[in-house]
Amino acid sequence: MADYVYGPGRNHLFVPGPVNIPEQVIRAMNRQNEDYRSPAVPALTKTLLEDVKQIFKTTSGTPFLFPTTGTGAWESALTNTLSPGDRIVSFLIGQFSLLWIDQQQRLNFNVDVVESDWGQGADLAALDYKLRNDPSHTIKAICIVHNETATGVTNDLSAVRKLLDKHRHPALLLVDGVSSICAVDFRMDEWGVDVALTGSQKALSLPTGLGIVCASPKALEASKTAKSVRVFFDWKDYLKFYKMGTYWPYTPSIQLLYGLRAALDLIFEEGLDNVIKRHNRLGTATRLAVEAWGLKNCTQKEEWFSDTVTAVVVPPYIDSAEIVKHAWKRYNLSLGLGLNKVAGKVFRIGHLGNLNELQLLGCLSGVEMVLKDVGYPVKLGSGVAAAAAYLSNSTPLIPSRI
Amino acid sequence: MADYVYGPGRNHLFVPGPVNIPEQVIRAMNRQNEDYRSPAVPALTKTLLEDVKQIFKTTSGTPFLFPTTGTGAWESALTNTLSPGDRIVSFLIGQFSLLWIDQQQRLNFNVDVVESDWGQGADLAALDYKLRNDPSHTIKAICIVHNETATGVTNDLSAVRKLLDKHRHPALLLVDGVSSICAVDFRMDEWGVDVALTGSQKALSLPTGLGIVCASPKALEASKTAKSVRVFFDWKDYLKFYKMGTYWPYTPSIQLLYGLRAALDLIFEEGLDNVIKRHNRLGTATRLAVEAWGLKNCTQKEEWFSDTVTAVVVPPYIDSAEIVKHAWKRYNLSLGLGLNKVAGKVFRIGHLGNLNELQLLGCLSGVEMVLKDVGYPVKLGSGVAAAAAYLSNSTPLIPSRI
Amino acid sequence: MADYVYGPGRNHLFVPGPVNIPEQVIRAMNRQNEDYRSPAVPALTKTLLEDVKQIFKTTSGTPFLFPTTGTGAWESALTNTLSPGDRIVSFLIGQFSLLWIDQQQRLNFNVDVVESDWGQGADLAALDYKLRNDPSHTIKAICIVHNETATGVTNDLSAVRKLLDKHRHPALLLVDGVSSICAVDFRMDEWGVDVALTGSQKALSLPTGLGIVCASPKALEASKTAKSVRVFFDWKDYLKFYKMGTYWPYTPSIQLLYGLRAALDLIFEEGLDNVIKRHNRLGTATRLAVEAWGLKNCTQKEEWFSDTVTAVVVPPYIDSAEIVKHAWKRYNLSLGLGLNKVAGKVFRIGHLGNLNELQLLGCLSGVEMVLKDVGYPVKLGSGVAAAAAYLSNSTPLIPSRI
Amino acid sequence: MADYVYGPGRNHLFVPGPVNIPEQVIRAMNRQNEDYRSPAVPALTKTLLEDVKQIFKTTSGTPFLFPTTGTGAWESALTNTLSPGDRIVSFLIGQFSLLWIDQQQRLNFNVDVVESDWGQGADLAALDYKLRNDPSHTIKAICIVHNETATGVTNDLSAVRKLLDKHRHPALLLVDGVSSICAVDFRMDEWGVDVALTGSQKALSLPTGLGIVCASPKALEASKTAKSVRVFFDWKDYLKFYKMGTYWPYTPSIQLLYGLRAALDLIFEEGLDNVIKRHNRLGTATRLAVEAWGLKNCTQKEEWFSDTVTAVVVPPYIDSAEIVKHAWKRYNLSLGLGLNKVAGKVFRIGHLGNLNELQLLGCLSGVEMVLKDVGYPVKLGSGVAAAAAYLSNSTPLIPSRI
Repeated sequence: MADYVYGPGRNHLFVPGPVNIPEQVIRAMNRQNEDYRSPAVPALTKTLLEDVKQIFKTTSGTPFLFPTTGTGAWESALTNTLSPGDRIVSFLIGQFSLLWIDQQQRLNFNVDVVESDWGQGADLAALDYKLRNDPSHTIKAICIVHNETATGVTNDLSAVRKLLDKHRHPALLLVDGVSSICAVDFRMDEWGVDVALTGSQKALSLPTGLGIVCASPKALEASKTAKSVRVFFDWKDYLKFYKMGTYWPYTPSIQLLYGLRAALDLIFEEGLDNVIKRHNRLGTATRLAVEAWGLKNCTQKEEWFSDTVTAVVVPPYIDSAEIVKHAWKRYNLSLGLGLNKVAGKVFRIGHLGNLNELQLLGCLSGVEMVLKDVGYPVKLGSGVAAAAAYLSNSTPLIPSRI
Repeated sequence: MADYVYGPGRNHLFVPGPVNIPEQVIRAMNRQNEDYRSPAVPALTKTLLEDVKQIFKTTSGTPFLFPTTGTGAWESALTNTLSPGDRIVSFLIGQFSLLWIDQQQRLNFNVDVVESDWGQGADLAALDYKLRNDPSHTIKAICIVHNETATGVTNDLSAVRKLLDKHRHPALLLVDGVSSICAVDFRMDEWGVDVALTGSQKALSLPTGLGIVCASPKALEASKTAKSVRVFFDWKDYLKFYKMGTYWPYTPSIQLLYGLRAALDLIFEEGLDNVIKRHNRLGTATRLAVEAWGLKNCTQKEEWFSDTVTAVVVPPYIDSAEIVKHAWKRYNLSLGLGLNKVAGKVFRIGHLGNLNELQLLGCLSGVEMVLKDVGYPVKLGSGVAAAAAYLSNSTPLIPSRI
Repeated sequence: MADYVYGPGRNHLFVPGPVNIPEQVIRAMNRQNEDYRSPAVPALTKTLLEDVKQIFKTTSGTPFLFPTTGTGAWESALTNTLSPGDRIVSFLIGQFSLLWIDQQQRLNFNVDVVESDWGQGADLAALDYKLRNDPSHTIKAICIVHNETATGVTNDLSAVRKLLDKHRHPALLLVDGVSSICAVDFRMDEWGVDVALTGSQKALSLPTGLGIVCASPKALEASKTAKSVRVFFDWKDYLKFYKMGTYWPYTPSIQLLYGLRAALDLIFEEGLDNVIKRHNRLGTATRLAVEAWGLKNCTQKEEWFSDTVTAVVVPPYIDSAEIVKHAWKRYNLSLGLGLNKVAGKVFRIGHLGNLNELQLLGCLSGVEMVLKDVGYPVKLGSGVAAAAAYLSNSTPLIPSRI
Repeated sequence: MADYVYGPGRNHLFVPGPVNIPEQVIRAMNRQNEDYRSPAVPALTKTLLEDVKQIFKTTSGTPFLFPTTGTGAWESALTNTLSPGDRIVSFLIGQFSLLWIDQQQRLNFNVDVVESDWGQGADLAALDYKLRNDPSHTIKAICIVHNETATGVTNDLSAVRKLLDKHRHPALLLVDGVSSICAVDFRMDEWGVDVALTGSQKALSLPTGLGIVCASPKALEASKTAKSVRVFFDWKDYLKFYKMGTYWPYTPSIQLLYGLRAALDLIFEEGLDNVIKRHNRLGTATRLAVEAWGLKNCTQKEEWFSDTVTAVVVPPYIDSAEIVKHAWKRYNLSLGLGLNKVAGKVFRIGHLGNLNELQLLGCLSGVEMVLKDVGYPVKLGSGVAAAAAYLSNSTPLIPSRI
């Protein structure tokens, strides 16, 4: 069997997930299976459930570590809190919000889709209007993707909370934090998020396989009456095993549990707020490079700029898919494709997870060469220079060392 | 963070899953993430989908590699082929069939439960009766656990097929092969199984994280009209991506894909039929040891003996949970608990997956010491002697070497 | 490239080195290279040099971590303390003492060989005689293998020291502790050992690659005038770099340094004295099994019994090499060959390093089957029973757990 | 125990050894110990000894895989072919040739040192003169470092051979290829090299631990009469075990053997000549960057430019040690210090081993920021632009892919 990861040298992984895994996490996962009913695995799980709350900035939330992906985590969030036919307001701003809406519709909710141009954030004025005109509280939930991975748009969740509060509306607030949590400021308790979720292969920098869902007390309450059919994704089974102290209704991945432990330890060692600042610095550097290249960010306003992914708009005479293909074939550089409406029009640079400056600058130098190779008149070194100028003037990523 | 796997020496993992991972598979999984949209991952996936059919002994089946556990695979099998209210016949013979039935009921099927004593196989006479009395084919599916992991009972699937054929009954045959496939003779095509499923952490000897589901053409056809709500577990999305050649509707675990490749390569190198013979030899050796100890097998008839797990009945004055606890604490030996109805009454020895003779004999010597320690009058060495006598007289596990 | 370690199941590694590596150590070594001139590697090295002294039970010794094997460590011990032509007394009791003597002769020392039958310990009466008759101190060093790996003989080092003290003889005491240190009681300071050495692949349970040498102040003093030619193995270069705080005159293996860190941590966590007790228990169990099989220990007196390796004498009609070959081919069990004078006559069971009871019992059950297969009338289970009876009655290896 | 390799992100390892290890090699080494006397290890060793000859471009040479470092390999080359007092001509052009000469002197050879300025190649005119004036062949060997790692100077070995041939001089040609073999064109047979050697942690991209020595038939012949004292490094013992087919006079590192297998496989898959071309391209790109920064290469003429390491001269007002320190602390970038005569005056960029374009450009962008930070008026992006312009116009590193 050939090994598809090949050299020379490393693959430069700059898709917005899955992301680079730190060596410490790879090491932690390099292990045998274990009996998950022995005392050891519950003891480990207990620390994970306690500590994982920090990445959501919640003390009142209840986390679930589903052996699944983000798509499964979405399903868990919806089916545990809602009943078929329930009206939900859902924002469509890109491919991932679209896929979640597709799931919401297939799960038989009554989805009130609020669409924006791809590259814009959620239309909060429309939400304001809908909430104002819903005195009887037919809207059961607001579904919003915190960071739309397809366009590099970060929504303002605190503003959503403010609107709900303004209208004293009891709708649940369900948030996809797949490409934001652990990378972009996220405050579950402060913003009154009812269900937040992420996937292990994003800013946590693990392999795929954990869909991490966190439920507020209000969401847990809602789950008692929600009529959507669910078994694998049912919180109830987990809660039952939490009570027993054995934690798992079915077999978890031992390797991912130890990996999560290592990943959390790394994040806490760096400091979650430092991790978030680091993402802001790398995101800013990327945007400065894009500007230096004379290209446009797909994200239409600065307030929506994403610190985890930048979607770069290419000139009409270039097919962005060619850029992605060439980057991989010629430079072992993995970039993200433009998806759906923006297919061929944008390529994406993922800059999330366990990453540092020189890794990013290596990527940017690769993008420059790719742009040149496909016929875009880029000045080589220009983006790197812009990014480096910013980075070398800002606070170091690594505050202290031996 | 303390490391819960500790020495001295190795943990002896003899629960019926998760099982020991071969070093080659651990090595194959020791890797970075990759972009699953690059050409490499689809190329790998293609070989996996083709080759994994061999472990089901099917050429016409369509496999799905869900990032989930066996419980998720169950849900996928049911929701893709059935509609709420559908009548299904389901056999209750132990804890895992019970859990599947619980799932079937929560998914709103009309479950016709056929119960046997725990330790007995599926009541096929009852099935015969039900099929005979169903001329209008109200029974849409037969759900059966091939190997009940809680009691060590292997059901005769060919007999089920014969009954369906005898009555020319079109019910789908859905089989949980979680603790049988890759270890016990299983013939999807020959036995007309419509959906078969297993989990990666069982006889495939991988970490948890893949729920492998294989659908017959008839099952695929049924999925077109099945009305059960499903999104994450929907085959339709996979089939769409299969057609596009990108294979994944959402992010797979890169590590598990390479691990599956290595696991399949090992199985094919040994030969699937040799793997099955090996399980029979280790199962037989275990049963001979149990007999030598003067203990009873929970499985009531030889025809149901399981080659992957042996549930050993302890005398009434002993709590089997004490055996499991003591084995772990004193000898770093992981055994399976008795579950539900047989809690306290049986302990289980899992002898499936990538395992050889001396590993099993080490385990059996441990069980002997544990039995002695908890007050059972075992003759030390007696079980090992019985097992070793059989093993040393039978065909070697390793037919050729350097 | 085929992978020569193959299944099914694990290799059972019971040669007296290299030994089983604990998973924690394998994990710690699963890493990239690092610049050994950065601040990190010296910081790590500093802890290693400090902590490794504990395994020698010395506070005054100076350790060196040579990137070499035991043979290189021998050379380092000799060439740094002696000059060509120097008279040394060296005990020949088996293949490894023979090899060391061969090295001593090739290094042009005047070697006064004191031979014993293979299976006996060092002839201390002869030493007594030689020391008494050396009033002018022509003997510059006593070279002794603490544990002769070929015959399973452990020498009494404290008795050697007593003789030196009795005769107030200033000869250096150079000790090969390759198969004893970290497994058998060893007290560098108390016994006045001047140079002690071991290899990483023995009781430290690492891969091969570190020859660990520890020098007493007297040995360091001797190194200032020793005229043997040496460069790679010269302590002087190390001492120079120790002073500078950069520690390495040439490139060390980063992986082995982290591995040694993990190995020491495991030993200290278990407690060095507990590790030594564990080796005694497993050694005793092995000897009881040999006795139960009706076979003789190559070691002729109980006082010399080795807790790290047992050389088992086979009847004249059996070729012990066949036993080793068959064990490997048929049961994936690695045993040690008889070497040189005892070739064909003994096979060896290594029971050192990170090992527990069930691993040993699995090995013993394998030896029983092998003995039967080659025509020795062994009662299957007899050795396992004898060993298990002893082990289950003695103090657990694992004193406390979760 | 803290883990000294820490994030965020990867360490950028650009010292001229140890170098980055490919993931495939790390995987191959992630394994248990094995009995090196079983049939498997000799079978593996046999392929290694056969295949490793290719990296020396020899068919007549005999390779030895010493468990040691480059310093040990030096010692093996010298002591096996020469006798104390033998006259050797040795070129001093930098720190590593100096260290080798120091070893030669300590091994009691009569070293005729031919010194050049650091930054120049070997003084071949001096050699010409010495050979001409040695009609009685008192010169027994020429010792030359192919690539001086301290200054980034590659010597012309074919010219050395031509001089020897011109004077029909029988002196042995001993070559340190530590930082050249597998990276720079090296032709043992064609150039009549008698002993060539390298270390595993250099262009082979393994951990430290193998000193690979290759001896011509003439060198083997010389070893029969060479009187230098040697045991651990003696070829004779290896040759004896080669004949027996067991290959190892003492315990090898199993992990490094499998690692070497993987490393060779990777090199052969890429093609050794492609590997050499890749090094030339990355070396050229580095030199273009240095030029763009307005800095001088320590190497004084183009004919000596090294494709594995570039020593960059800093202006007098900057301490190059500060650059190295700052690079590591601020950017997780490991550069090489200036050594001895050029301490403080140069820093070194290692660009050897399993490396690709974007890794190098990431490094160069880091060097630019460091230069700026320490007060050198560099134009950010300038070096990256120069390197990228060259790289994107030259043949791709990865000729074909899926």
